[in-house]
Amino acid sequence: MNILVILAAMKLVPDRMDDPPGRRMRTFLLLVALNVADSHIFAQPTTQQLGCPGCCGGGMMDNRYAANGYVQTNPVLRSAFSVARQSSLMGAIETSPVQFDKVFVNDGGDFDGSSGKFRCQIPGIYFFSFNIQTYDHKYVEISLMKSRQKQITLYAESDERNIMQSQSVMLTLIRGDKVWLQLKEGTHHAARSFHDNRITFSGYMVYANV
Amino acid sequence: MNILVILAAMKLVPDRMDDPPGRRMRTFLLLVALNVADSHIFAQPTTQQLGCPGCCGGGMMDNRYAANGYVQTNPVLRSAFSVARQSSLMGAIETSPVQFDKVFVNDGGDFDGSSGKFRCQIPGIYFFSFNIQTYDHKYVEISLMKSRQKQITLYAESDERNIMQSQSVMLTLIRGDKVWLQLKEGTHHAARSFHDNRITFSGYMVYANV
Amino acid sequence: MNILVILAAMKLVPDRMDDPPGRRMRTFLLLVALNVADSHIFAQPTTQQLGCPGCCGGGMMDNRYAANGYVQTNPVLRSAFSVARQSSLMGAIETSPVQFDKVFVNDGGDFDGSSGKFRCQIPGIYFFSFNIQTYDHKYVEISLMKSRQKQITLYAESDERNIMQSQSVMLTLIRGDKVWLQLKEGTHHAARSFHDNRITFSGYMVYANV
Repeated sequence: MNILVILAAMKLVPDRMDDPPGRRMRTFLLLVALNVADSHIFAQPTTQQLGCPGCCGGGMMDNRYAANGYVQTNPVLRSAFSVARQSSLMGAIETSPVQFDKVFVNDGGDFDGSSGKFRCQIPGIYFFSFNIQTYDHKYVEISLMKSRQKQITLYAESDERNIMQSQSVMLTLIRGDKVWLQLKEGTHHAARSFHDNRITFSGYMVYANV
Repeated sequence: MNILVILAAMKLVPDRMDDPPGRRMRTFLLLVALNVADSHIFAQPTTQQLGCPGCCGGGMMDNRYAANGYVQTNPVLRSAFSVARQSSLMGAIETSPVQFDKVFVNDGGDFDGSSGKFRCQIPGIYFFSFNIQTYDHKYVEISLMKSRQKQITLYAESDERNIMQSQSVMLTLIRGDKVWLQLKEGTHHAARSFHDNRITFSGYMVYANV
Repeated sequence: MNILVILAAMKLVPDRMDDPPGRRMRTFLLLVALNVADSHIFAQPTTQQLGCPGCCGGGMMDNRYAANGYVQTNPVLRSAFSVARQSSLMGAIETSPVQFDKVFVNDGGDFDGSSGKFRCQIPGIYFFSFNIQTYDHKYVEISLMKSRQKQITLYAESDERNIMQSQSVMLTLIRGDKVWLQLKEGTHHAARSFHDNRITFSGYMVYANV
């Protein structure tokens, strides 16, 4: 379904050719159907009246009104990813972002599976949740990182019993912020997964700060 | 609170009886208050001007504009459920959906407690989260299913220690998709609950794909 | 970015000084830029035409239209908190709300870290999620409370192995409802945390009931 956008323009125009200029306002309403996820910028002004002196225009909340008088559908007022790792995660001498190979959702394309990093495009408040299964006789200590800073930590001590571990948090992000998971360095750290997706990581924008 | 909807119609009309037809446009704005969850379709065109040649109309994003010129409040642009099971869940020879008897939220009515299945009415991206307590000396292996396919799995090995286990994921659903939890077959599988709701399952639409 | 609001007013006015009154409608559109989180009420009617007989006005969905003809930006149609506790939580003879000292998000200011309570300002459906690490040789039994009633419970039996525990639920709240976490009374209960935030609690409004 498209979003219906009313573009409204007001201009002082003569009511009749023999009226004095500016005597009354004239209103023009234009209806434009925009796709929700449409990333195109209007290549042409939708109306010549927009941008003229004495005019004003309004669009709907889910769209952006640019200073140049153009209305643009908003390609980014939603962002959501949900990914899984189908193979176990083994600790190493150095830490590195946890990488994911199964994508359930990557709405907006802000998550890069190969680097394992979410890169914020829309400033806003984001919810993040991750779950892992422990690995036999290994510790797990995974932190959710925001731009090299640990935000929250999930921890479980070593044991032969394989169980699930979870953490979640909300963060306020600005454009360019990167968020990822990081397993603590050391070969005594690990997390278990299989093809049935026992390591999962999800995040999405709860509210946009735009 | 109602949603205020502007219905705008434009028509070329003579400005005065002695003006030539089509000389100027006339704009009609009509304000209609619609309930958010109202499922009624407007029984009558809200304005005769809608649908006429040279007319256009616009509503607000949370409502649907039907091709027939009617505006309809959207009964389904939100969907959320949160349920609990107050009795323990015991594995059987065959798998079956986990059923729930306590309802916290069932906004939109898309969750059927007796079958244990969520049925998508609004296409969109949904977040699902579930939590269970392990059962003494039993394994737990619960998968979140979408239309008979395992999406993610929660797993814990048997032990005398009762602990909590959690998983979560987002899925892109189309209308009619069913999502439910399923305990793996076998009487060595179980999950523990009481009247204080130790088995919970929640899901909600994050973004609509309409 | 501001929200662009169209205020539309219709009034029957004479087209020309010599026209009979009420002959035709005139439409006035006014564009007002409002901040999303702006809590100010318009001190003056934005247009004298609003409220007049034969007039109607419309704003955008994310704003409130008051009965007095004023448009008000909505300060509260979003609410989100995410907090952590950086020190361990030790059981006592009496229960008390779990308190938090690290704030990631408190959008709307509805969470009070010192009391540990979330107080609902906007009626709606809220998602809550919490995570804790167990404490060596201690039980944990934490319930999410709504106005003195247990909603869901997280439970883990005592053991030397430190692991993570999680629960989540959605609740329908009305204005004034308070939600908090409560550790069961008894010194054999505890939860472990450090400066890296192993006890976390998040909640946010999924849908407003306004």
